[in-house]
Amino acid sequence: MPHLDLTADPVDLCAALVDVPSVSGEEGPLADALEEALRTQAPHLSVLRSGHSVLARTELGRERRVLLAGHIDTVPIADNVPSRRDGDRLYGCGTSDMKAGDAVFAHLAAALPEPRHDLTFVFYDCEEVEADRNGLGRIEREHRDWLAADLALLGEPTNGAVEAGCQGTLRAEITTRGRRAHSARSWLGENAVHAAEPVLRRLAGYAARDVDIDGCRYREGLQAVRIAGGVAGNVVPDECVVTVNFRFAPDRDAAAAEQHVREVFDGFELAVTDLSPGALPGLGAPAAQEFLAATGTRPSAKYGWTDVSRFAALGIPALNYGPGDPNLAHTREEHVEPAKIAEAVDVLRRFLG
Amino acid sequence: MPHLDLTADPVDLCAALVDVPSVSGEEGPLADALEEALRTQAPHLSVLRSGHSVLARTELGRERRVLLAGHIDTVPIADNVPSRRDGDRLYGCGTSDMKAGDAVFAHLAAALPEPRHDLTFVFYDCEEVEADRNGLGRIEREHRDWLAADLALLGEPTNGAVEAGCQGTLRAEITTRGRRAHSARSWLGENAVHAAEPVLRRLAGYAARDVDIDGCRYREGLQAVRIAGGVAGNVVPDECVVTVNFRFAPDRDAAAAEQHVREVFDGFELAVTDLSPGALPGLGAPAAQEFLAATGTRPSAKYGWTDVSRFAALGIPALNYGPGDPNLAHTREEHVEPAKIAEAVDVLRRFLG
Repeated sequence: MPHLDLTADPVDLCAALVDVPSVSGEEGPLADALEEALRTQAPHLSVLRSGHSVLARTELGRERRVLLAGHIDTVPIADNVPSRRDGDRLYGCGTSDMKAGDAVFAHLAAALPEPRHDLTFVFYDCEEVEADRNGLGRIEREHRDWLAADLALLGEPTNGAVEAGCQGTLRAEITTRGRRAHSARSWLGENAVHAAEPVLRRLAGYAARDVDIDGCRYREGLQAVRIAGGVAGNVVPDECVVTVNFRFAPDRDAAAAEQHVREVFDGFELAVTDLSPGALPGLGAPAAQEFLAATGTRPSAKYGWTDVSRFAALGIPALNYGPGDPNLAHTREEHVEPAKIAEAVDVLRRFLG
Repeated sequence: MPHLDLTADPVDLCAALVDVPSVSGEEGPLADALEEALRTQAPHLSVLRSGHSVLARTELGRERRVLLAGHIDTVPIADNVPSRRDGDRLYGCGTSDMKAGDAVFAHLAAALPEPRHDLTFVFYDCEEVEADRNGLGRIEREHRDWLAADLALLGEPTNGAVEAGCQGTLRAEITTRGRRAHSARSWLGENAVHAAEPVLRRLAGYAARDVDIDGCRYREGLQAVRIAGGVAGNVVPDECVVTVNFRFAPDRDAAAAEQHVREVFDGFELAVTDLSPGALPGLGAPAAQEFLAATGTRPSAKYGWTDVSRFAALGIPALNYGPGDPNLAHTREEHVEPAKIAEAVDVLRRFLG
């Protein structure tokens, strides 16, 4: 089993985490190594295991509990494992998204035997794939009590900023139908692709909202992400499907988002294929205020759906805060700046130490 | 190898042809079976082979030669093979387009050892796909002399009518471009699918011409036959391609047709991918007059591009005449009426016997 030294420099720990490949579904070796390291190097924590996820928590009877969560899986490797240092950068698959955040949390797990708040560390699997495989979702279903907390911090890459809440996301298929005919006798058919014109017109003319919530600005968007129609080069198509993705501000819940999309495409056949609610910023909670004070920064809106929305749904305020750069996530050139890792360790020590 | 009985009732022979699947590119087994049947059951013919095409011809030294041609490929099967009889109909993929015509010709190939005119039978491949794969085109390039004739009859479905000339056909791809972005930050991208809206608007609003030539009325049509765009469910697409098919009356030549389509989609990136000229009716030739007399009918315009235009381009008068119903071509419900098959056999016996 690979050995992880939780007491090492967190940048070296990040490199060690990157060097144990953990593409979604294949996190077993890394979960084993983390579990072993937590059991032996952080004996003040109780360690729990669920599939390829590892939890570790204090039980000090503090008034509040803070949960620090990071997924340990990565997107597929793109010739970027093992990690390598190049000047001021640590390159490698998952450096930004989000083994740098994992390294910060794992380092603190061993380094803070007497934190100000009770702590729960969650290192979980399968965040980069379909929602129903998500390790945090599995823990929520099977061990809801493991996730109890007054504040959750997700180590997703934010470049050291605090990003609050998240957009919701809805996908729907809008289908137009017609009647097939040979294209040489097209007057006998009805063209389903031509019939999709008003769908595209509504998309092109859609005015997306900008919403301000708790000082965070959420921009919505409604986009066609796919269009497909056609049978053969000489056939009038009898079906055309436009797949749209609606990213919505968290002042709409899932039902309201669906209703809105149905109104936009009123009169068309529409099937929702994927729907995840957003999360409100939740900045009013005392633990959130305390954390913001420790960072000395102002929060902004998170664009993109993240697991903070799971915590929001459980009534737990949740923020994204991690050392990685979100624009480098999933790229071949993925890297992280050691200074950002050190800064995150400092901020969290200030908050929790 | 499947066995074909050329001396059977032509309706049963049609069913047997349908029961050997022959989607474009996969005509090998049917071509093999036809070649074997012609060699063994029509020993008065010389048999030639080119790829998945089979030719058979008399060499009687008659004054005139009539060529009877049918493609043996079909569009993709739509749960309609094997064939089935239902009352007065024979259902199945290719029944109408155009294995009924093939059955009539194959039957006559065996049944007319002493025809009035020399005969050339051509059973060819890949008519339902891109023009450059067309078996008749390949024969024209490689064995031009095999196609020598004073009149060509194509067994394409005409419902027993004589259809003269044919529409031309042009395919073009119209591409709209944008800029990729994560759909959660869609304002950083430009949606190429939304940009295709005016292309569909021009198609939906297109007013097609009706043209009268030699008493035959040609209807034009401009249709989207395919649309495709999209990268992934969370990405703003950077490309969308609309494939259009323009069927044009033979008073436009290929260049004029292309210019017209470029005018319709002025301002868009457009690439012509396929362009075949139409054919003027060509009703003046003596053999054509003789054939018209045998049918006792008046000719009308052919809708659809057919290989008559290849013969027209070679200076050979060519007519479409077949037992299938063109409106059923390429449909799930494709079928043919046995009485139409019998009628075509009678007419051609009267003309050639």
